[in-house]
Amino acid sequence: MNINSARLMSRLKEYGDIGRDSQGRLARIAFTDADKLGRDQLVTWMQAAGLNVEVDKIGNIHGLWEPESVVESRPIMMGSHIDTVLNAGIYDGNYGVLAGLEVILALQEAGFKPSRGIVVSAFSNEEGAHYAPDMMGSLVYSGGYSVKKALATIGLNGLVLGSELQRIGYAGLNEPGFIQPKAYIELHIEQGPVLENLELPIGVVENLQGISWQRITIEGVANHAGTTPMSMRADAGIATAQVMLHLKDYVTQKGNGMVSTIGTILFEPNIINVIPSKSVFSVDLRSPCESDLKDAELSLAQCLNEIEEIDGFNISVERLARFEPVTFDRNLVESIEKASNGRGFISKRMTSGAGHDAQMMARICPSAMIFVPSKDGISHNPREYTEEQHLINGANLLLDSIKGLAI
Amino acid sequence: MNINSARLMSRLKEYGDIGRDSQGRLARIAFTDADKLGRDQLVTWMQAAGLNVEVDKIGNIHGLWEPESVVESRPIMMGSHIDTVLNAGIYDGNYGVLAGLEVILALQEAGFKPSRGIVVSAFSNEEGAHYAPDMMGSLVYSGGYSVKKALATIGLNGLVLGSELQRIGYAGLNEPGFIQPKAYIELHIEQGPVLENLELPIGVVENLQGISWQRITIEGVANHAGTTPMSMRADAGIATAQVMLHLKDYVTQKGNGMVSTIGTILFEPNIINVIPSKSVFSVDLRSPCESDLKDAELSLAQCLNEIEEIDGFNISVERLARFEPVTFDRNLVESIEKASNGRGFISKRMTSGAGHDAQMMARICPSAMIFVPSKDGISHNPREYTEEQHLINGANLLLDSIKGLAI
Repeated sequence: MNINSARLMSRLKEYGDIGRDSQGRLARIAFTDADKLGRDQLVTWMQAAGLNVEVDKIGNIHGLWEPESVVESRPIMMGSHIDTVLNAGIYDGNYGVLAGLEVILALQEAGFKPSRGIVVSAFSNEEGAHYAPDMMGSLVYSGGYSVKKALATIGLNGLVLGSELQRIGYAGLNEPGFIQPKAYIELHIEQGPVLENLELPIGVVENLQGISWQRITIEGVANHAGTTPMSMRADAGIATAQVMLHLKDYVTQKGNGMVSTIGTILFEPNIINVIPSKSVFSVDLRSPCESDLKDAELSLAQCLNEIEEIDGFNISVERLARFEPVTFDRNLVESIEKASNGRGFISKRMTSGAGHDAQMMARICPSAMIFVPSKDGISHNPREYTEEQHLINGANLLLDSIKGLAI
Repeated sequence: MNINSARLMSRLKEYGDIGRDSQGRLARIAFTDADKLGRDQLVTWMQAAGLNVEVDKIGNIHGLWEPESVVESRPIMMGSHIDTVLNAGIYDGNYGVLAGLEVILALQEAGFKPSRGIVVSAFSNEEGAHYAPDMMGSLVYSGGYSVKKALATIGLNGLVLGSELQRIGYAGLNEPGFIQPKAYIELHIEQGPVLENLELPIGVVENLQGISWQRITIEGVANHAGTTPMSMRADAGIATAQVMLHLKDYVTQKGNGMVSTIGTILFEPNIINVIPSKSVFSVDLRSPCESDLKDAELSLAQCLNEIEEIDGFNISVERLARFEPVTFDRNLVESIEKASNGRGFISKRMTSGAGHDAQMMARICPSAMIFVPSKDGISHNPREYTEEQHLINGANLLLDSIKGLAI
């Protein structure tokens, strides 16, 4: 049994053209008119497949296939998201949802009689482009965030989420969690370079990194770049460089899948001949192991303390986000691995470095993910690309995995 | 013989209120209406002192005292500038010009009969706030830059320098260099913390740092902060931190008065969860010794080369400015030092880290500078401050030094 690869590819392409802006950029930002267009097309396709389409209070769309053969009470859920960032590629999220729908179609067309319902879900606002937090739809669905709070969120555009959801016609009546899945599997592009570099077609995701985001402000003393001897400086920029290299060295030495990134930086006054009086920078620390993550945070704090003990420095730290690592269900991971072997795919167990709806669903049911390679690891960019054969392989592996759970 | 300290202080204060903008910020930016107001007041005071006021083609104002006692052909020149940056303090430049005028008044009032003319000059556009290069008036005066080119300069405000100079009425007829001084002494606030930290009242400036300004662009590869292992990164930010610490360590170890500053930085895309693909930063290197400066530039280039050899990195370097160090006249420095001893001031020979008109005048005559302490080393800022006693000491030392040269 195989998915219809021509249909999947043509739908992915067609779907990638929905919601392009006047400059040709794909931008189906959650709860905008473009998002509505994407939702409408998905619902149309779900209905054409005979699925029972349900929308919940945070706007998650669920397409449920529950033919007469179903005897077990809890369905198997597949899913991901259909919202995008600004100037996005066409695979992130969409691939998982459209492949899920394709799996149901393939099962239907092969005359498969599931013992459980099979549902494909598109979770609202995974990207968090306008409304924080990201992964909102699955977070609310799994009980980690109240519907009321989510609907009251004010977006970067100044608009209230709940009103926008009403406006685009996707404020559903179902309570989050109204479908209690037996298991959840999410198929996604890797958004990283690991599979491509190892030339492997499939990643079986066994866990997801914990994330620690901090914003650090180092205040030093602005002085003339020419007249201030090196020994009399409190240079906020140099202190920042020391923190950057300390973190990089610590994390590299520690290994174990941990990564650290200083992605943003701002100097004040940012003038060529003035010693920086202030540096504001972000720290993004990730690890699949909570104790490693804590140790790295501690090491960073110690490094900052040492700097602050030097005359002229003052440091403040703001926590922006903190998620503990998520370990996916071992049985589910093994069953996907077996299905991969059955197809003759060499797979690699791996850690997801990005956040996904699966990490929220893991709160309420056994969950796992399937990754396919991303060209150059690029994502959130029009250059995001995954070869057709990889996309087809991933969808067929999802098909086999779901079939195995719904027999 | 002493200067009239009450008059000097009252004039400094009065002069500091000329050209404040609607927000109360002192901004006598060269060739603006505010600059004209400052020039007019200076000329008024020069004329009241019976000086022969001459303006040259680049707008430098020279007030020449040449009583009947003068028998030598070349006058002694004092000077500095009266233009300011935006939101300036009241001492930078103005102090040297007003103290110079005060020296002539004191000599006159004491009935001193100079054997040489004594001239106090205010050089145009030392700050270069709207029109590059800075130190323009003295650079043109000393033959380092053509009048024609200078007058054709387009300012940040889009206006042509020559037209603005005409408009404010200070386009003189004298050729630059029309007065050939026997010697030039510039009195200035230190604009650095050295004298204050050593609790010394006087700095005798024996040389001026060479300056090397470069803008460096490191291109790496943008990738997801969560999904890209540390070993697969080409992080332009981390590479920048390595360059920053390399330079700082090199310069600190080398000593010998060299300083380095990375004052500006910009990451792209500057997003918390994206590895920087690009970092653009400035390097400000200064040393009183040309070979040290060259060695440091070479060491920087080697450090950049090593980074560029790593996969994924691409580096470009743009030279923004390069001035060789200037050594002031040894005899003049010694004579100032002696005069300082004569007043009972403990002085320190020092290097100027900032650029001054004296470095340009050193091209055409023996030159030197006198520094007085700056509170916290702050300059180019309303908080710029020098204690009254220091200002008076500096002016009295200038008086004695000039007197000694004009006997």
